[in-house]
Amino acid sequence: MELGRTGTAAVTDGSPFGTDNLPYGVFSTPSTRPRVGVRLGDTVVDLGAALGSDGPDAAFAAPVLNPFMAQGRTRWAEVRERITALVAAGVPDAAVHAVGDVVLHLPFEVADYVDFYACEHHATNLGRLFRPDTEPLTPNWKHMPLGYHGRAGTVVVSGTDIVRPSGQRKDTADAAPAFGPSTRLDIEAELGFVVGVGTPLGAPIPVDAFAEHVFGAVLVNDWSARDLQAWEYVPLGPHLGKSFATSVSPWVVPLLALEAARIPLPGQDDPRPLPYLRASAPWGLDVDLAVEWNGEVVSRPPYREMYWSPAQMLAHMTVNGASTRTGDLFASGTVSGPATNQRGSLIELSSGGREPITVTGEPRTFLLDGDTVSLTGTAPGAAGGRIGFGEVRGRIRPARLTSAGRRPRLTDRRRSVTS
Amino acid sequence: MELGRTGTAAVTDGSPFGTDNLPYGVFSTPSTRPRVGVRLGDTVVDLGAALGSDGPDAAFAAPVLNPFMAQGRTRWAEVRERITALVAAGVPDAAVHAVGDVVLHLPFEVADYVDFYACEHHATNLGRLFRPDTEPLTPNWKHMPLGYHGRAGTVVVSGTDIVRPSGQRKDTADAAPAFGPSTRLDIEAELGFVVGVGTPLGAPIPVDAFAEHVFGAVLVNDWSARDLQAWEYVPLGPHLGKSFATSVSPWVVPLLALEAARIPLPGQDDPRPLPYLRASAPWGLDVDLAVEWNGEVVSRPPYREMYWSPAQMLAHMTVNGASTRTGDLFASGTVSGPATNQRGSLIELSSGGREPITVTGEPRTFLLDGDTVSLTGTAPGAAGGRIGFGEVRGRIRPARLTSAGRRPRLTDRRRSVTS
Repeated sequence: MELGRTGTAAVTDGSPFGTDNLPYGVFSTPSTRPRVGVRLGDTVVDLGAALGSDGPDAAFAAPVLNPFMAQGRTRWAEVRERITALVAAGVPDAAVHAVGDVVLHLPFEVADYVDFYACEHHATNLGRLFRPDTEPLTPNWKHMPLGYHGRAGTVVVSGTDIVRPSGQRKDTADAAPAFGPSTRLDIEAELGFVVGVGTPLGAPIPVDAFAEHVFGAVLVNDWSARDLQAWEYVPLGPHLGKSFATSVSPWVVPLLALEAARIPLPGQDDPRPLPYLRASAPWGLDVDLAVEWNGEVVSRPPYREMYWSPAQMLAHMTVNGASTRTGDLFASGTVSGPATNQRGSLIELSSGGREPITVTGEPRTFLLDGDTVSLTGTAPGAAGGRIGFGEVRGRIRPARLTSAGRRPRLTDRRRSVTS
Repeated sequence: MELGRTGTAAVTDGSPFGTDNLPYGVFSTPSTRPRVGVRLGDTVVDLGAALGSDGPDAAFAAPVLNPFMAQGRTRWAEVRERITALVAAGVPDAAVHAVGDVVLHLPFEVADYVDFYACEHHATNLGRLFRPDTEPLTPNWKHMPLGYHGRAGTVVVSGTDIVRPSGQRKDTADAAPAFGPSTRLDIEAELGFVVGVGTPLGAPIPVDAFAEHVFGAVLVNDWSARDLQAWEYVPLGPHLGKSFATSVSPWVVPLLALEAARIPLPGQDDPRPLPYLRASAPWGLDVDLAVEWNGEVVSRPPYREMYWSPAQMLAHMTVNGASTRTGDLFASGTVSGPATNQRGSLIELSSGGREPITVTGEPRTFLLDGDTVSLTGTAPGAAGGRIGFGEVRGRIRPARLTSAGRRPRLTDRRRSVTS
């Protein structure tokens, strides 16, 4: 792979991975172990080979982004400047790989995973479906970004197959629950934010200190088994309906690349949030998501519609003194816009499964075995075009028959061949 | 410290840390870094110094139990036999420390933390307090061990001070929530179980395979801010009301030491659990807990009363294909017996704060700054006496004033001087 000065322009021209993006990931080749890379056009630049791997740069040789992310905001900016200079000067051939030649891995070790519920359209839609006899938004919803802890150990990288989960479900008409594969397997299109610099116990992160702690953002598909979830979630919240898998994109878009995507938040005047949730300069993100189901775009959820900002999520999550760690992931919750074709979950798109949508010519509600879902996202970049988040993709595999005597085939959650 | 053959008998005679217990922990001294030790009477045996630190024994030099726990059931039994033989022969002096001379650390790195709700008495009591207008047990309660994910990053070792959390609370009479330090700070007395051998995605752990995966048990105090919890928990479950801190005891009692503590489960006939929750030989644990509030025992929760067994919790947690990792912690939820002085939380002991109990001569409901709570536990041992879990202790420190410009003093969650 050659990528001198001319080559760089060739690979980045018109690409969502131009020089104003430079997202980080972890890749391996047949001859190299997992290490840190930066996406540039259709190539991956090996940062250790390009910038060195001594001293602080030893972080580039790690199999996860955590050591680099822990180095902090000044270092993140410095490395970004070095990469920019390197790209301008021409990247050494030995440090460049075609993205199709590498395996992409889970880019960071997930410490704790919190999933929020920060979209008013989604929370209203879901409230109507899950609690039809009450107000769709619970009384606390506009006072705090509601969230819950998910299972960090089942966060997988894009490309990992999703095995249909089994569990308990019970329709209201049934006398007792039944056990079996989920029949209402769904997606949730979200953005996730990755903590680089953690905080000790007892040190809340002020809403204005977001950029000191958060390294970047990923796409998240929070796979959801709606039948399991509906039966289990009162009173302790979602558990097995979510914990079987959560997929993230292999590229972490640095916060520094999202500055051109900042927009004002929608109003928070009624009610006005408590002081710890009031930023001095509130901002949201103008990220366009797309949900592709078996190759057909079925929805375009607009992140700009989100009620609570990422900075409010982090401030809320830590206001009780909870510590944070490098690798903490907090996700936005499903992104849904006001229009029917902007909804970020199938339960919303199909009105609880009652109104099928047409996908590749067929009427569809929830996911069938063999289905593939891909989420993509783009945002305004500093160069005037759009930068890309890449994609988070997963294919549904049939539920596995399990019994005490038989262990099913294994799945490696850390490897992906998706770009 | 001398501990030859005679010394061993002297330190273990009548101790809850006799030769039928041998719990594992992580300790350091002024001259040694954190490493694996075994509690024997009032001493800690340095396993690396006593048994070696080469090959598989290198796990004893690690600063957490995770590498040893990951070595699996056969190895756990083999090491236990070697320790037993060593103790019989006399432990070399150089490997023995008085427990008062060492610092005890968080014994394992917590991967994911799930908290169950497996006690019918507790769930009934809490249901009445949190949802007075409905049936106290939700319809799903007797069909599955309900649980939710807690914050793994805020699991701290016994002896860590607990800073009173701040957050949002709202009484039903209030028009809007207020922000401030929790006024209903509570405890939850629980047992926790630690996964040694994890499982890949898609491989549920059968209810009869518990002993292949679970290494041992700890005491857990799941500190709870009831005012924060009550306002936030619908619909996503507990979050900030719990995530500020969860304390665990420094000693992990191996499952092998709890065989004499196995008892039949209370009946699960109405309803009968689904097949994946039916063990071929169901067992519970006869562990007596005690809650000590400022030095006075205020409750003695009996673990034998628990409805759902630890094996059922693990089978349920993974039946959807969720993977597990070395260091996963799952706790039972509050242990409460049928009698008023057997309740494992203050909200139960004080009937929601309405009926104070007398503690050291004062009427008390929830925790005040300066209070200390210690949970202890014992179980029948193989030698005919009782083995001890040690204690999990924490003292309440005042809430910290925080603002965007001021970062409070730090707390180190990993070090303890508690024995």
